[in-house]
Amino acid sequence: MMVELILGGARSGKSRYALQQALAHDGPVSWIATAEAWDEEMRERIARHKAERPAHWTTLESPLYLSAALDAAQGLVVVDCLTLWVSNWLCQADESAWEAERDAVLARLSRRTTPLRLVSNEVGFGIVPDNPLSRRFRDEAGFLHQAIAARADTVTLVVAGIPMMVKPTRK
Amino acid sequence: MMVELILGGARSGKSRYALQQALAHDGPVSWIATAEAWDEEMRERIARHKAERPAHWTTLESPLYLSAALDAAQGLVVVDCLTLWVSNWLCQADESAWEAERDAVLARLSRRTTPLRLVSNEVGFGIVPDNPLSRRFRDEAGFLHQAIAARADTVTLVVAGIPMMVKPTRK
Amino acid sequence: MMVELILGGARSGKSRYALQQALAHDGPVSWIATAEAWDEEMRERIARHKAERPAHWTTLESPLYLSAALDAAQGLVVVDCLTLWVSNWLCQADESAWEAERDAVLARLSRRTTPLRLVSNEVGFGIVPDNPLSRRFRDEAGFLHQAIAARADTVTLVVAGIPMMVKPTRK
Repeated sequence: MMVELILGGARSGKSRYALQQALAHDGPVSWIATAEAWDEEMRERIARHKAERPAHWTTLESPLYLSAALDAAQGLVVVDCLTLWVSNWLCQADESAWEAERDAVLARLSRRTTPLRLVSNEVGFGIVPDNPLSRRFRDEAGFLHQAIAARADTVTLVVAGIPMMVKPTRK
Repeated sequence: MMVELILGGARSGKSRYALQQALAHDGPVSWIATAEAWDEEMRERIARHKAERPAHWTTLESPLYLSAALDAAQGLVVVDCLTLWVSNWLCQADESAWEAERDAVLARLSRRTTPLRLVSNEVGFGIVPDNPLSRRFRDEAGFLHQAIAARADTVTLVVAGIPMMVKPTRK
Repeated sequence: MMVELILGGARSGKSRYALQQALAHDGPVSWIATAEAWDEEMRERIARHKAERPAHWTTLESPLYLSAALDAAQGLVVVDCLTLWVSNWLCQADESAWEAERDAVLARLSRRTTPLRLVSNEVGFGIVPDNPLSRRFRDEAGFLHQAIAARADTVTLVVAGIPMMVKPTRK
């Protein structure tokens, strides 16, 4: 299976699920981290995640230009995570390049010849957020997930660390 | 299948899933829209959705009295969406008729002879909202979903545009 | 099946699902309630739930020391619910005993010889909460669910009153 979208809630084990797949992979692994260390809370989280990964894997830090990182990455590629990438774009002053960058990433999904695991937060199952930026973020994340799911071979929803198969659908 | 409850998060593709079923339907289609255009954001969303539907379908705008709209609607009927309907009721000054209207809708589900697709937001998977109205809304939506799911032939949870079958249950 | 984790959103019917299992159980039932009546809203909810349970069941009120209640409870045991238990701990002034108590509960899951049903709110599918305590709560709940799911025989996600099987996984 080439492209898998791995959705999950906060602390659902979705990154760990991607990690386990990468650990089982026979060959090089590239980990594309989209997180930026804005504050102490985030810095600690990034360091904790990094320490869990084998030292010989390649780490690419790519908060904005994910398409370029996808071109550069070798072997099995994990992107952790898409919602942070969306969030980084929406919190930039200049959003004008967001749609082009998003479409560049979508275009790369169709022609993958090496395995790709895309981790993202499912954020749309709560009540409507008060502030417009949160609503915008939720909309962009939702549309992105739909576009990726349509192109992915597999979509998995991680619940309490357990993968539920969303795509292919079961009748 | 007569009655299907289609649940999904924000921007999950739940309305699109109902739309695709209606497009595949051989015969008249009635689209019951519960949205009210309170502001510019909502006005744009309503217009965008309307433009996606075939011009020969019937559109009924029914922000409050859904039971009457269900009686009037012909052919395959889509209700888009239940959570906006609940929200319209709770934001009215006079809520005294809400329970009667809700029960009138539930009563109509058992005796459908034409296909009905009920679209609604799953809103209960976040942390407890700060304000009492949001908690009340979440409660009413949750109880409504349970009552409808008990009467529906099919319950579907749309995740990233992909339908997951909730009912009938799989063992 | 000895240990089942029953996850669901607000008003999803998760407690009712546990209740139905307990009603079908042939033998004594113990209901461990973790709720504390902080305000009128909560007092009403507790009373409503209690009235739905048979009078001959044992009720144990255990807002903090769940491990002790698990040791004392006889027959089929329902814990309703874990998220309130986490919340009670995080809202206490002295959190120092939380991790030890959590680990004591986890240790008890592996050696159950009578059926246990653990009800909990899935709270991680919304956008990131504004305040640090809510983020902390969401993290603790998520990690707890992962730890319990790894030890449970069955994990169920209740959606609109309908149980979806999460574990064992379906391929």
